[in-house]
Amino acid sequence: VTTVEQTAPGELMRREIAEQPDRWLDLVADRRAVDEAARFLGVLRAEGRLNGLVFAARGTSDHAAIYAQYLSQSLLGVPAAMATPSVATVYGRDVYDPNSCLVAVSQSGASPDLLATLESARSCGTPTIAFTNAPESPLARAADVHVPLAAGPERSVAATKTYTAELLALHLWLRAAAGHPTALVDDEIHALAAHGRAVIRNSTALAPDLADRLAGAERAVLIGRAFGAATAREAALKLMETSSMAASGWSAADAKHGPLASVRPGTPVFCFVGERAGRESVEALLPDLYGRGADVHLVGADVDEPGLAGILPPGVADGLLPVLSILPMQSLALELALRKGLDPDRPLGLTKVTRTT
Amino acid sequence: VTTVEQTAPGELMRREIAEQPDRWLDLVADRRAVDEAARFLGVLRAEGRLNGLVFAARGTSDHAAIYAQYLSQSLLGVPAAMATPSVATVYGRDVYDPNSCLVAVSQSGASPDLLATLESARSCGTPTIAFTNAPESPLARAADVHVPLAAGPERSVAATKTYTAELLALHLWLRAAAGHPTALVDDEIHALAAHGRAVIRNSTALAPDLADRLAGAERAVLIGRAFGAATAREAALKLMETSSMAASGWSAADAKHGPLASVRPGTPVFCFVGERAGRESVEALLPDLYGRGADVHLVGADVDEPGLAGILPPGVADGLLPVLSILPMQSLALELALRKGLDPDRPLGLTKVTRTT
Repeated sequence: VTTVEQTAPGELMRREIAEQPDRWLDLVADRRAVDEAARFLGVLRAEGRLNGLVFAARGTSDHAAIYAQYLSQSLLGVPAAMATPSVATVYGRDVYDPNSCLVAVSQSGASPDLLATLESARSCGTPTIAFTNAPESPLARAADVHVPLAAGPERSVAATKTYTAELLALHLWLRAAAGHPTALVDDEIHALAAHGRAVIRNSTALAPDLADRLAGAERAVLIGRAFGAATAREAALKLMETSSMAASGWSAADAKHGPLASVRPGTPVFCFVGERAGRESVEALLPDLYGRGADVHLVGADVDEPGLAGILPPGVADGLLPVLSILPMQSLALELALRKGLDPDRPLGLTKVTRTT
Repeated sequence: VTTVEQTAPGELMRREIAEQPDRWLDLVADRRAVDEAARFLGVLRAEGRLNGLVFAARGTSDHAAIYAQYLSQSLLGVPAAMATPSVATVYGRDVYDPNSCLVAVSQSGASPDLLATLESARSCGTPTIAFTNAPESPLARAADVHVPLAAGPERSVAATKTYTAELLALHLWLRAAAGHPTALVDDEIHALAAHGRAVIRNSTALAPDLADRLAGAERAVLIGRAFGAATAREAALKLMETSSMAASGWSAADAKHGPLASVRPGTPVFCFVGERAGRESVEALLPDLYGRGADVHLVGADVDEPGLAGILPPGVADGLLPVLSILPMQSLALELALRKGLDPDRPLGLTKVTRTT
């Protein structure tokens, strides 16, 4: 007998936002796959067969991959790039350095585009790793090494817990590959989960008022730098998906070229300034933004600041902060959609029918 | 004696749009730098020192670099990636494969960010090439090889002729590196210039009516695939810069994740379908777009189709079409800004004071 659970609009997304810290703890509780992926990379490096990493992903997972692109370069000193799947799927060329490693990141592990990318890399003799939330998926099966995200089934169409699970799985993998002691990293993740619960609690409290303030906004601009640019893009995607806003996320370095011109008096602009590195290049845009009359929201870790400016805990390492800084934006996207009479679990007619047996 | 030429709003952009085909012919008239850059790459390949190309650019030039990323992979079979300048400028890591080649693309050649990226690559022993419109610029001087864009001074703040000059210079370089006969390529560029004049003439005629139709639109979505994704991003940037629209450009493969949700009844959506390769993945989105009530504009080469759908000539090679497909969007951005009482030459208070002596 198959029954369909009826849920109120946004209920699934709300639950999945709330459970994220528990899922992070699940991820550190079983390190076997992460450690295997780190050893796999270690062998390639030791044998001089790692000229670079190439990440392949789409949508939300693409933002996790951008984060990993920065983290791998800053942590391991290995060049890292984003794949261009259409070179294989549109132009039919297999263009991978056999002395590199392709890393596919996908919640479902079922995207034909990513599978074709992974097969293209394999045909060049390039080793492959897949991070997915579906261990039986084609991508998981096709990769040399698979790391499960351990996020459990995600039922809201708007991805939340799979995104932070991707960030954290990629983080654990790269820290292990860099030789950081497991006990030290695990302690950091336990502290992170505690911080995460506080940020989610505070975000949930703030989001209704913030959503009221933004309910009439047609557009939003989101700006970060490096890790923060991944957060800006993911936050923009969440606002687009759930609230149908014309939202776009940018690196501070690119924002000067055009995106600032789309900021009008009253346009909400979210600036991610929690990380220490890169913060000043976001802050350098503030005079221009205030000059245009933007409704500027700093998302940061400034002690004693109210609202989003102080919503992140101080002292969290830059490399872990993206796991926290997306949380208030998830809550905002949820509340904003509800204000607009939209169901963030099933945006714009898309359905994800969930059966419990 | 220095005099300042007074120009009407949009006059500079209008002139610079119009002169583009002449500037393309200037570029093929003197091939010395392009051929030197091709020989430089040829030596690296012959010596087994070219694991990949890495492109570094910002804003409009970034879109030309994305085009080159696809073209180099499909034409030469060499992996090509986009640089992440902040790894050097924010995290202080120099992470370049000495057996790769860094290619910087910049109109001004003066961006501190790109200069730092090029110096970071040089510190790794990585060979460098710069494409700029300023032969005396820091970037031009710092690179191992410099290719001038020969576009002449660009006076409108909205870049037009430097963009198509970048596309074409990168095209000529990669065709030469692929060993395509100069005479053949030059014939194609002469034909392209003739096509360009016709497209500009027709675009100029169409743009006023199209701008009337779009004058009330707050947002626009632009979609292409592979080469067309570069065009979609550049067209979105032009609309943002000059008309303050909330415009965003996407690869068809990413559009399914969120951007489609921002399409409402009446939202203008531009679909770039001129290239043969990748066309079907853009067309696959059309039922969804029509279902949402979008104001869909195909930009293509369909003979006998009126308006933008037939504005491009048939039979132009995919690798050259991006030089043409941006032209109608440049004219539209110009007319739309004027409709809104904005000056596309000096968007939103930015000035580019031009002195003629």
